[in-house]
Amino acid sequence: MSSCKTPHTTELVKTMDVESILHMKEGLGETSYAQNSSLQKKSMEAMKRFIIDSALAVYASKTPEIFTIADLGCSSGTNSLYLAEEIIKAIHERSWQSARLTSEFLVFLNDLPTNDFNAMFLSFPEFNMKFKAGIELQGGSAPSVYIAGIPGSFYGRLFPGNSLDFIYTCYSLHWLSQVPLGLLDSDCKSINKGKMYISNTSPPAVSLAYFKQFQKDFSLFLNSRSAELHLEGRIVILMLGRRTEDHSDKSTTVLWELLDRSLAIMVSQEIIDEEKVDAYNVPFYAPSAKEIEDEVHREGSFVMDHIQAYELSTSTGDPKEDARIISMAIKAIQESMIRHHFGEAIIDTLFQIYSGLLSEFMVKEEIKSSHLLVVLRKSC
Amino acid sequence: MSSCKTPHTTELVKTMDVESILHMKEGLGETSYAQNSSLQKKSMEAMKRFIIDSALAVYASKTPEIFTIADLGCSSGTNSLYLAEEIIKAIHERSWQSARLTSEFLVFLNDLPTNDFNAMFLSFPEFNMKFKAGIELQGGSAPSVYIAGIPGSFYGRLFPGNSLDFIYTCYSLHWLSQVPLGLLDSDCKSINKGKMYISNTSPPAVSLAYFKQFQKDFSLFLNSRSAELHLEGRIVILMLGRRTEDHSDKSTTVLWELLDRSLAIMVSQEIIDEEKVDAYNVPFYAPSAKEIEDEVHREGSFVMDHIQAYELSTSTGDPKEDARIISMAIKAIQESMIRHHFGEAIIDTLFQIYSGLLSEFMVKEEIKSSHLLVVLRKSC
Repeated sequence: MSSCKTPHTTELVKTMDVESILHMKEGLGETSYAQNSSLQKKSMEAMKRFIIDSALAVYASKTPEIFTIADLGCSSGTNSLYLAEEIIKAIHERSWQSARLTSEFLVFLNDLPTNDFNAMFLSFPEFNMKFKAGIELQGGSAPSVYIAGIPGSFYGRLFPGNSLDFIYTCYSLHWLSQVPLGLLDSDCKSINKGKMYISNTSPPAVSLAYFKQFQKDFSLFLNSRSAELHLEGRIVILMLGRRTEDHSDKSTTVLWELLDRSLAIMVSQEIIDEEKVDAYNVPFYAPSAKEIEDEVHREGSFVMDHIQAYELSTSTGDPKEDARIISMAIKAIQESMIRHHFGEAIIDTLFQIYSGLLSEFMVKEEIKSSHLLVVLRKSC
Repeated sequence: MSSCKTPHTTELVKTMDVESILHMKEGLGETSYAQNSSLQKKSMEAMKRFIIDSALAVYASKTPEIFTIADLGCSSGTNSLYLAEEIIKAIHERSWQSARLTSEFLVFLNDLPTNDFNAMFLSFPEFNMKFKAGIELQGGSAPSVYIAGIPGSFYGRLFPGNSLDFIYTCYSLHWLSQVPLGLLDSDCKSINKGKMYISNTSPPAVSLAYFKQFQKDFSLFLNSRSAELHLEGRIVILMLGRRTEDHSDKSTTVLWELLDRSLAIMVSQEIIDEEKVDAYNVPFYAPSAKEIEDEVHREGSFVMDHIQAYELSTSTGDPKEDARIISMAIKAIQESMIRHHFGEAIIDTLFQIYSGLLSEFMVKEEIKSSHLLVVLRKSC
């Protein structure tokens, strides 16, 4: 833990309470996360088969009368119910084929209390109606689906013991519970000047601080879920992750570096204080597959059924349009934290600059993001 | 069902879709339901003992490891968690005394999808912190409390079968699922001209239409809850109800009649069309104890453990202040429906007139509201 105590620095460092600040852009409007999460949707679609097969494996091992599912970090867009619907359809179909009927499903959608649950809840009646109509149109009898929202941090307990059959979490676990401690030197100066995440110019202490925070958080995540899942229950994780053991692997740092450069431009234009930029760090960590494996092994409740790294290209063939899409997506994700740290006023200018830099970059080089798929089975 | 089909009347009558319109005034501001529900809180406090004792009776009959509670029609104010907290404390204390430990509680807070769940969810972290600190301060060990929101109408299924131990619903069951059909004559004219609820000048067909809708809704409520509750589980209902079998019993109609008079004044001032007022009816019904008993008997799953009618005075000794408090409370409750039917523009003027009429009335006569407490036990 940092020992520096000057009021100024303390104020700068301490005020990022992730649980009460971080949330995806609310509502359903043009700048909302709901309208700017197409990459996440693309990845979910690509990995859907693994997720459904894992849920079917739980069903095969237990055949519960009520199948209970949790989506951790659901946010508020259309993605929230997309996977739940696919899972329910698959289990329902299987249950009819095997004449072992699971006719009730309980779905818990979780996110931090600052998430826009209202927007999501307003979509439930239509979701339920379409879902039932879709199955009945094919001559089937629709199961009953009950949907609840559960606000709170998944770095801690969210559900009673032995109450869940299946958990999935998409694009949430790369968010840490807090900005790591240890990013200040003994004089209370940032050791990661001008950078908001690990970069290839960051000193090793920066990577170490981020890695330690990841270990602590991921271990707490596993421990909490272990208590909540039935034996043989599964967790499927989709998240950003590194292809290599290099902490500054370009695939997970390039978008942050371009945001650093955007802020640096605003410092040079005297719109933002340099010190304020130095004090801004994101509560983010993209682990490698090995780092995930090591923590799962250390925690001990889960067997790793599957782990896979994969890349997704965001290219539509038009770099300018690609840059606009990515910029809007990063804005929908980052806005709550940037607004909290720098104030509302800089947002539009910052993302205009960012979009420009992204566009310049993407003319020269394609941006491929790097992802991890992890399937865990509760074994004890 | 009404057979009239003129486009104009159909438009007037059909557009009140209660499920997507009715909600208590959102947020935590001066005009919010959260700030204007002191009467409901007063009643909950007065009847707290019955509610807690009913929950303890469930606990005594079963001692589940996880005690699951549902609040149906929770709204978004501080009232939402008040009773849950009292119930959990009482069961936790009893479980320590008897050394049969119930250490986990799951609380479902339900309301229509239009309810302001965001405001409620934001208060959870502080609630949980204070709750734990309160118990630990007295040297105890706090149980784990998990809180979920479940949006949807309680006139239908909300939860999987056999999943709840205890249900309470405060000041919600006097809201019907819809404005009753049958309030138009064969010429498509309102049979309850100038009135929004049963009044002493309403023809018998009006009372009958409201009563039939109550029977249908309450029966569906009981049937749905019967499937969801464990055997020996309890439902406690607090609601507005009549002291007598007279449908136009003053204690449940006086506040509506004063709102009728306020609208009539605005018609005379040519601010609102008379036809628009004629077409406005509230989806509300205050049953008598006997009407409740009859439906419980007819449905057949529940034994009536207790039923009690009681009155509450809202008087603080200052009629003008009393009128202001009631007017604000009725506004927080009625605003969503009035805005939907008449438009935003009339709200402030209407409630200025209403507050004046209330004040005049209360100088001459105290307003006592009439309430019902019902405790049901699932017996088969």
